[in-house]
This record gives sequence, C-alpha cells and structure tokens, in this order.
Amino acid sequence: MTRVCVVGCGAIGSLYAAHLARVQDVEVWAVDPWADHVAAIDDCGLRVTGREEFVAPVHARTSADDVPPCDLGIVATKAEHTRAAVAAAAHVFAAAAVASVQNGLGNEEVLAELVPRVIRGTILPAGVVTAPGVVRYDAPGDTWLGPFEPRPASAAEVARLSSILNSGGLRTHALADARGPQWDKVIFNSATSPLAALTGLPMGPLCSDPALRTEVEALVAEARAVCAALGITVSDIAGMVDEATVVAAGHKPSMLQDVLARRRTEVDVLNGGIAAQGRLAGVPTPRHDAMVALVHGLERSWEETS
Amino acid sequence: MTRVCVVGCGAIGSLYAAHLARVQDVEVWAVDPWADHVAAIDDCGLRVTGREEFVAPVHARTSADDVPPCDLGIVATKAEHTRAAVAAAAHVFAAAAVASVQNGLGNEEVLAELVPRVIRGTILPAGVVTAPGVVRYDAPGDTWLGPFEPRPASAAEVARLSSILNSGGLRTHALADARGPQWDKVIFNSATSPLAALTGLPMGPLCSDPALRTEVEALVAEARAVCAALGITVSDIAGMVDEATVVAAGHKPSMLQDVLARRRTEVDVLNGGIAAQGRLAGVPTPRHDAMVALVHGLERSWEETS
Repeated sequence: MTRVCVVGCGAIGSLYAAHLARVQDVEVWAVDPWADHVAAIDDCGLRVTGREEFVAPVHARTSADDVPPCDLGIVATKAEHTRAAVAAAAHVFAAAAVASVQNGLGNEEVLAELVPRVIRGTILPAGVVTAPGVVRYDAPGDTWLGPFEPRPASAAEVARLSSILNSGGLRTHALADARGPQWDKVIFNSATSPLAALTGLPMGPLCSDPALRTEVEALVAEARAVCAALGITVSDIAGMVDEATVVAAGHKPSMLQDVLARRRTEVDVLNGGIAAQGRLAGVPTPRHDAMVALVHGLERSWEETS
Repeated sequence: MTRVCVVGCGAIGSLYAAHLARVQDVEVWAVDPWADHVAAIDDCGLRVTGREEFVAPVHARTSADDVPPCDLGIVATKAEHTRAAVAAAAHVFAAAAVASVQNGLGNEEVLAELVPRVIRGTILPAGVVTAPGVVRYDAPGDTWLGPFEPRPASAAEVARLSSILNSGGLRTHALADARGPQWDKVIFNSATSPLAALTGLPMGPLCSDPALRTEVEALVAEARAVCAALGITVSDIAGMVDEATVVAAGHKPSMLQDVLARRRTEVDVLNGGIAAQGRLAGVPTPRHDAMVALVHGLERSWEETS
C-alpha cells in the first residue's frame, strides 16, 4: 500500500487527490485549512464533476498533525504558503519524496529545505472548487515529473508517482530532467500573465494586439537566453501563445484574476523566478524585472489611500 | 493693438487667455466647444482664482467662424483635437504665428500643416476650470517659446508673444531653440506618467520604490539617447524626479487621472512621441514602445466586455 499526502486542497490539490484515490492500494490524505471543504471530503468523499464524474475516498484533515507518515507527497498550495504548510507536515514527509505541482520557479528550492527528497512537477490540468467537497474538472492536460537535482527523489519514486497518476487517469510523464516542461509553462505564463494583469485584457485581445505581442515575444526571448545559459531546452512558446490566442481567447490568466480580486499575485515565482535564475546565470532580464516592478506597484497601490 | 486667439479653453487655455487679456493693447479671443464656459466668459469676463484673483475681458466663441483674423495664436486643446480645432480656425490664423502649449511631441508638426508660422511652446503652470467662466490657478511655472524649425515663426513674433505673457504675469522665455525645455518636460512625464497609470501609484510612492525608480531611470536613459542623436540638450531629469517625489508626493499624473476616469490618455504624444523621434533618429526605444503598448492595452480593455 502506498500512502500519499496532498498539501493544499484547492482546485489543483483536489483534482490530484481525487485521481490518486481512485487507484487500488493507494491511500490518500489531504491537508487544507478550509474546514468546510475538509469536513465534506472526509465525511462524503471528494467529488469530481465536469470532464469526469466520480467520488473518491480521501482522508482530509485541517492539521497535518492528524496525518500519518506517507511515502509520497504533492504540494499544491499557493507559492507563498509552501514553507509554513510543508514545515507543519515534517513528520508526514520524514521519509517521503515530495512533488511540487505549483506555479512558477523556486517552490522546489523551498521543499528541498524541508523534506528528504524532492520531485520537480509541472501540470496543465485546471479546475475550480465549486462547493465544499466538490471540484469541477475543467481542462485536461499532461503532468511532468522529474527529480529536483539538488535534492533528488530516486528515479523509482518519480516512476511510482507517475504510474499512480496515470492509473488514476491523469496522463503523466516521468523524466530524468523535467526542467524543460517546467520552463515552458513558466515562460508562457510570465510572458502573458503580467501583461494581462496590467492591461486588464484576456488572452485573445492581448496576444492578437501587435504591439503587445511584441512585448510577449521580448519576454520570451529574455527567458530563452536564461535557459540557454542554464542548458535547459524549451519548446515552441510562440506556438503555445498562438494556440492560446485562439482556443482561450476569453481566458483571464490567473494573475489578472488576482488583480481583479485585489489578491497578491504570483509574479515573484513567475517573472521574479526567471529574473532570479537569470542573476544566477549572469543573464540580464530587464523586461522581467520591469514586470515584477509594475505588478508589485499595482499590488502596493491597493494599500495606498486615495 | 495685438489680437490673440486661444484655441481650447480648458484649464491651460483659460489661464493663458486671462493673463494675456490683462495686457494693454491686447485683444484676446477664445474658442472652445463648451457653451456654458464660453457664455460665462463672454458675458462676465474670465475669472482667475487661486494664486491670483482677477477678471479679464476675453471674447469667447464656440465657433472659430465668429472670430476675426488674429496676429498670434495659442493652441491648448488635448492633442487629439488639435487638427480639427485648428483647421476650423484657418481664417483666424491666415497670417498668424501660432504656439502650441500642449503636452508632448508632435503637436507643432500638426500646426505646421495648418498655419503659416509655428511657435514651439512648453509650459509648467497648472490649474483647473472650477465653474463656467472660472479657472483656478494652482501652480505657477515658466513658459518657454521658440520657433518650430520646419515652419518657424520669426524671432520678432516669438519675442512679441513672450513679452505679452511676461507683461500679463506669466514668466516666459523666448529662445532660439526651445527643444530642450520641451524634451525636459516630455521626458519627465514619459518616464513617470505611464508607470503611475499602470500601477495606480501617485508620484511619491512610485518614485521612491527602488524597482520602479529603476524603470524611471531606464525610460529617461532611452529618451536621452534619442536627444543625443538629435542634438538636443536636456536638463537634470533625475533631479526633477527627486524633487517631485518630495514636493508632489500625492500628485496623480494626468495619465493616471485619465486612466481612473477611463479617458483616452496622451501616451501617443509622450512615450509615443519619443519613440517616433527615436525611429527618425535611428535610436531604438523598446521601453517607451512597451509603455505605449501597455497603456493602449489598458485603454482597450475598457471596451472589452467582461
């Protein structure tokens, strides 16, 4: 029997917990501070609606103190909550390999300070928690897992988590170097999300505007230079942008959603993450720096009296 | 007797019309589409409050058709209205030298297509129309006038307008080359206003944020490179920014005021004007291009359904 603990049971954590819990000989625990969601999951199971319809048996707790030691972990909190949430689960992960499925760069570095072995994860599925105990599965997408190099999980652990996710219905790839898919997603998000956040434009109008598309391309080019210096191979980001412009024309990137709700954004792990890696690699990233400065300025304006 | 026509009688046009009309042997005409303001001025005189208190005799009309030929002109419309407003006053300016006191770059180029001789003007005073016929004079500041090189007013005409403004109480400098003061103001505005517009921050919090100040400096540096290529000498913009950070800490630049009111901004004659001159000079201006793209994107978002 494999025991897995999911830390952070918002939309992504819930989707992953539910799919894992469909697999035979896998016991799934979930930790989240939202008491109503936790109680509904623990009492009635975690219900998935939308693209799939099923109920999965998940043990949910508001405190990691009530979770037994696990073999594998998945961290799905917002980046800013990683350290506190995982530190509180130290005994759960004392002998575990733990994957981050969070947005951006830098999450694995935090995990590496807190757990024995780390898995670099990148995911594309999307959904939303529609009621306590219920997550709507909106968009499918692959998952990529690989060892986090400075404190790596073993290839067997990466393969095991990958195998369980595939059995549960989430197509997952176990890689020796998972940096490429991670940077694909980070670059795509960093080149589009802050522009959406600053202008208020959804993906279609944003990326089909020639002047803004020039900015998208310039942000991509800067990030590619960082990847080149780090030996990371990235995909055809321009093609991803072209596709999103058409198939997700009305989509408001999460950073725009955060701005509209006046929530702190994830710019620090997106453009800020690229800029930090650029500094390590000796590659200047003035355009990503500008995005960080502008988005932080916008966040700060909410605190100003006017 | 010298006859002067002021086109566009908002705050700036009103301040200049009123000060001109205090001078002996000067007859001032004003044209503006706002009928209540025009009627109040024409019936009761143009009243100045605030830093000075006086009423000046100004002939005001809603149509330039009702204005006699003039010797001098001052154009004080928003940049987007220049062409239509001045074209409608062609007969007024058939033999005139006409000054732009508008924001940004490119206004004189439009005047040069429509009037015989053009004066390049840059101004610092500020105020606001508080009621029909009443303008509050908030902030003093110098005025610089010089011939617009491709279609220049004579030195005598520049000196005459300068002399009248000085007599009326607005300190004015007649220069052989007035590009320096114009670019000082344009660079200062272009390096701060769009950042304020995009973040919502007033001058103090904006310019005292180290990351945003880096962006300010980068925008200044790009514009300085354009000036260097064009042989224009600019002042200590960083010092102007330092001063504004302290003495105008709560000030919301006009581009931010436009954004808050969801009005079209003047980014095209500010950052867009610098970028256009950069193209002519063969100097790239990627950061000013980015500001134009982002601010236009923000303007466009107001038209999007959400």
